[in-house]
Amino acid sequence: MQATIITIGDELLYGQTVDTNSAYMGRELALLGIRVREILSISDEKAAILEAVARAEQASDLVLITGGLGPTKDDITKSTLAQYFDTQLVSNPEILALLEAFFASRNRPMLQSNIDQALMPEACTPLRNDRGSAWGMWFEKNGKAFVSMPGVPFEMEALMQQQVLPKVKQYFRLPVIVHKHILTAGKGESFLAEEIAIFEDNLPANIKLAYLPNIGSVKLRLTAHGTDRATVQQQLDEQVTKLVTQIDHCIYGFDEDKLEAVVGKLLLEKGKTIATAESCTGGYIASQLTLVPGCSAYYYGSVVSYTYDSKREVLGVKQETLDNHGAVSEETVREMLLGVCSKLGTDYGIATSGIAGPDGGTPDKPVGTVWVAYGSPTDMRTKKLSFKGNRHQNIELTALMALELFRRYLVKI
Amino acid sequence: MQATIITIGDELLYGQTVDTNSAYMGRELALLGIRVREILSISDEKAAILEAVARAEQASDLVLITGGLGPTKDDITKSTLAQYFDTQLVSNPEILALLEAFFASRNRPMLQSNIDQALMPEACTPLRNDRGSAWGMWFEKNGKAFVSMPGVPFEMEALMQQQVLPKVKQYFRLPVIVHKHILTAGKGESFLAEEIAIFEDNLPANIKLAYLPNIGSVKLRLTAHGTDRATVQQQLDEQVTKLVTQIDHCIYGFDEDKLEAVVGKLLLEKGKTIATAESCTGGYIASQLTLVPGCSAYYYGSVVSYTYDSKREVLGVKQETLDNHGAVSEETVREMLLGVCSKLGTDYGIATSGIAGPDGGTPDKPVGTVWVAYGSPTDMRTKKLSFKGNRHQNIELTALMALELFRRYLVKI
Repeated sequence: MQATIITIGDELLYGQTVDTNSAYMGRELALLGIRVREILSISDEKAAILEAVARAEQASDLVLITGGLGPTKDDITKSTLAQYFDTQLVSNPEILALLEAFFASRNRPMLQSNIDQALMPEACTPLRNDRGSAWGMWFEKNGKAFVSMPGVPFEMEALMQQQVLPKVKQYFRLPVIVHKHILTAGKGESFLAEEIAIFEDNLPANIKLAYLPNIGSVKLRLTAHGTDRATVQQQLDEQVTKLVTQIDHCIYGFDEDKLEAVVGKLLLEKGKTIATAESCTGGYIASQLTLVPGCSAYYYGSVVSYTYDSKREVLGVKQETLDNHGAVSEETVREMLLGVCSKLGTDYGIATSGIAGPDGGTPDKPVGTVWVAYGSPTDMRTKKLSFKGNRHQNIELTALMALELFRRYLVKI
Repeated sequence: MQATIITIGDELLYGQTVDTNSAYMGRELALLGIRVREILSISDEKAAILEAVARAEQASDLVLITGGLGPTKDDITKSTLAQYFDTQLVSNPEILALLEAFFASRNRPMLQSNIDQALMPEACTPLRNDRGSAWGMWFEKNGKAFVSMPGVPFEMEALMQQQVLPKVKQYFRLPVIVHKHILTAGKGESFLAEEIAIFEDNLPANIKLAYLPNIGSVKLRLTAHGTDRATVQQQLDEQVTKLVTQIDHCIYGFDEDKLEAVVGKLLLEKGKTIATAESCTGGYIASQLTLVPGCSAYYYGSVVSYTYDSKREVLGVKQETLDNHGAVSEETVREMLLGVCSKLGTDYGIATSGIAGPDGGTPDKPVGTVWVAYGSPTDMRTKKLSFKGNRHQNIELTALMALELFRRYLVKI
């Protein structure tokens, strides 16, 4: 079974609004095993809407439409759909009564445009909107369903949950699709692909693997199709287990996990604490760790030391270490880690020092050279990293690698 | 002139990835006066790609395509476009040399999938990608242009700026459109609109004003249309001057300016230095300030103090201050600022302490309560802020307001 999503609104085409509705609807449909064939974003124009709906009707069994249901002149979805389904707009007494009550409660006059919001195509089933004045619409034609919803995400999401998804489940006989996301860090897409090439080749026909790469990390998605949920789930689980066994070392989590939260959870489980001493990452690791609610239980803070003085004064790095080895050196990150653990009284630390760029590189230490120290004062590891990105990327990659290296250290302890 | 955008990837249809690329491309095309007719998100399948490109070719003069250019098996855009344009894939010596140099520099072996990244359709102009290994492609057919770019936003954006937009301007005859962005912070959209209502009403017919609100900031865009570039530019400049005179106090910059870089520039000009002491912002202000290349000339560092102990030990906040007023208080941020300026030896400081949420609120100090101190140890200002966002938003808003307050302080000194 296939679906088409149509989002209506010039603001989407101008790029003033990012279309988050489609992703939301896509996720919800995927959970029901409905494959979205295509997402179409189009203008608030009658011809564009008619063409898109006709195209969707040909290709899909279910068509979800958002946008163009407001009270203003450019909101023409309702009248256009009435035309498409060859039906008339009639005033819906239930909607009208609710609108009247709403305006009465606020002592505001009802304009004609407000009264017109009670108009509904005669051929549709109106879908109640608890969060706004524009109701949704459900049309049926030759065993296919067409749903129109407002474009405000907050209203659309409630309509989906309360009205649309239950009706979709009832109206269609659905196949089963189950997904699992395996989250990896610190290994490039092509190396990962090479490592699991045989696994991928041997996947059963009803299970697909996709690579979703990001900066420094790759998300692997396994998707299983079938008819019986328990069987499909079991088939998927088997493949996930195989895959995990093979690349265990670089997997930091599954599905919605975040690396910084995974590290936090490990620390909480072990009852341990951490602080960071950041030079080149400039507080970025701290800001990642502190995005996690409740992080103050294990994260004590950071010293962002952007000068020799601050490394010496706040972190206790020795002047001779700086003089002999420079700020970007194994010796310096070691002393930074020792200093911050002692200063903030934590079990573990992460320290970074490097040349994020674009300036500051030397032949010996080109832009992108980074030293990281991680672990405890008595059991510390260090690693030299080399990145070729711009300043922003080098900072992000350093943070990601430092957290991933520390995670791997933690799980082994 | 019309364009169609095609974004390729099952992850978009499943809703695992929100399609931000389309909005980016839509914005950039709108700036050139090109209207996006339709955005199509489709599956990584040959038939879907061929159908979408054919459809786009019928309706538009320019077709921008992203996604499906990686080295793995599900990346089929390149071969599919070669088929569409009836051309062969041939190895591009320039790309191959760059790939070889890249892998050699990392002492990593080149896999077949890496070597294949140098394959390009013979009929296209390859578009150099400085940020990744998958180059873009530019095809021409009957006066229409077709562009394929990688789906990673960071790579796509660079390709757009460096290659695609200049080529589009050259290839098509475009009307004259000139824009100016006026960047404001710390004032809500409706207040700003009220303040410049008369200005807006009196704009000449060929100049339009748009509000582009973001978290805590509003970007105003003035767009002038016409036929003669010099005239259009002059008309626009006149209106910009008028607008700036009226809302000078909340303007931090223009066009591509970043608040953190503007603050840095002011400090450089005055030969002054700054450090930050962050509690609720958790290093976010530091990470913003250190995104600016060369910031070490004026930014000395940050102490991220997530515990009472660290506020006391590292920043010298008095225990009795914490006991009597709590960590989220005017008294505490004052002492944090004094502490960090003295510890890091800077002229100025910014200190934050607040409840970012979701937990930790009290009736007295609900989630979103933040105290900020900024200025010099001898001429310090403080402000209490109240936000209603989620954790992430509260952190971002605090950082933005703290930097903006400090900017306004600096320009008056």
